[in-house]
Amino acid sequence: MEVSPVPADRTGLAISFPPLHKPRMTDTILYDYWRSSASYRVRIVLNLKGISHQLRSVNLLEGEQRDVAYQAINPQGRVPTLSIDGQEITQSLAIIDYLDATRPDPAMLPAEPADRAQTLAQALIVATDIHPINNISVGNYLKSEFGADGKAVVTWMQHWMTTGFAALEQLAPADGLFGGEQPNLADVCLIPQMYNARRFDTDLTAFPKLERIDAACNQISAFQNAHPEAAKSAA
Amino acid sequence: MEVSPVPADRTGLAISFPPLHKPRMTDTILYDYWRSSASYRVRIVLNLKGISHQLRSVNLLEGEQRDVAYQAINPQGRVPTLSIDGQEITQSLAIIDYLDATRPDPAMLPAEPADRAQTLAQALIVATDIHPINNISVGNYLKSEFGADGKAVVTWMQHWMTTGFAALEQLAPADGLFGGEQPNLADVCLIPQMYNARRFDTDLTAFPKLERIDAACNQISAFQNAHPEAAKSAA
Repeated sequence: MEVSPVPADRTGLAISFPPLHKPRMTDTILYDYWRSSASYRVRIVLNLKGISHQLRSVNLLEGEQRDVAYQAINPQGRVPTLSIDGQEITQSLAIIDYLDATRPDPAMLPAEPADRAQTLAQALIVATDIHPINNISVGNYLKSEFGADGKAVVTWMQHWMTTGFAALEQLAPADGLFGGEQPNLADVCLIPQMYNARRFDTDLTAFPKLERIDAACNQISAFQNAHPEAAKSAA
Repeated sequence: MEVSPVPADRTGLAISFPPLHKPRMTDTILYDYWRSSASYRVRIVLNLKGISHQLRSVNLLEGEQRDVAYQAINPQGRVPTLSIDGQEITQSLAIIDYLDATRPDPAMLPAEPADRAQTLAQALIVATDIHPINNISVGNYLKSEFGADGKAVVTWMQHWMTTGFAALEQLAPADGLFGGEQPNLADVCLIPQMYNARRFDTDLTAFPKLERIDAACNQISAFQNAHPEAAKSAA
């Protein structure tokens, strides 16, 4: 596995937003936020596939996702959005599907339908059953409508991570990554969620296989260069 | 569009669970729950593709999803699980992906990568940004940990539906279904969510395109036969 501590394939720095300049057809631009784990997934895949791209930070804490120009390309006002091949694509899993269809090397999903379904199911445990429930907008609702304090929101987040990870640990391989020797979509979804888990002091001792996979992926430069701290430095 | 008010392609009735009998390789069995909207999606796709199958009800209210035999095939203890071609597949979107790969007619996603990405992104608004946050387990947590009453949980559900639908309405076509003349994955995800929206008295007046698509899909026998009331009758 290639290891490089330094972001190597950033072709441009984040540009503050607004204004939103219409990109040239040839530019690939990821609108992201450094701590967004859906953005983190796409950064990993862009790096694994060696796709030159620029990052444009959409600062969620400053409300830039509600900017009219941004909502014109992402009606949900969420990140990420990928501008590529003259179009904009939203939703991290749809972006990754498009990249796999148009830049298939390396593939994020196995070719054989049964293997593909298993990998997708593993990835979806994170992408549907953990991550959306822990979204910042959900935490804000808990605070505003149910009077939850910060500690209660963290406990909430830990609960959904622990529940999802328990199932994923059972499905994880005894050795290697979810993708075997090369990371696949399940690894790409897991690693940002493990970052969140550590950020919110989640007890991971019941998930030794997930911890092993996380450690192994974090030795790969494509993952290192996609890490929130690397994205923050570039923003 | 074919219209039939009577479930036509049910090849077997739900069998109470446990015991879990190991199916013959040739049996296709959907472990579902009539009100589960992820199950509802898969029922629609099985019907659209004309795949003979049996339904086995996993009664979520009676805790059958926590049965050891069921968790052996679905470590999350969730529905649906599809037993097909001698294997079990979990997660509705992974199941549908497998069915599309192995029984491609009719396809649930466009062939062209850019169109496919747009359809996936539309479907994922429902599948990641509405449905998981409105899961029964989330509602139960709100009640037990934040003292939410039934009304507060319904308000919560309406909030996430209204937020997601607002984006989806902007992306919906002016005429026809998301899939044009034939339903695609975005339609398959939308219709169960519209059922939930009505069940919880959500104001849908701001979403005329979604209402039009919902009404049109509900004229199609594959959708009618997958409806929760039809699945309830079969359970």
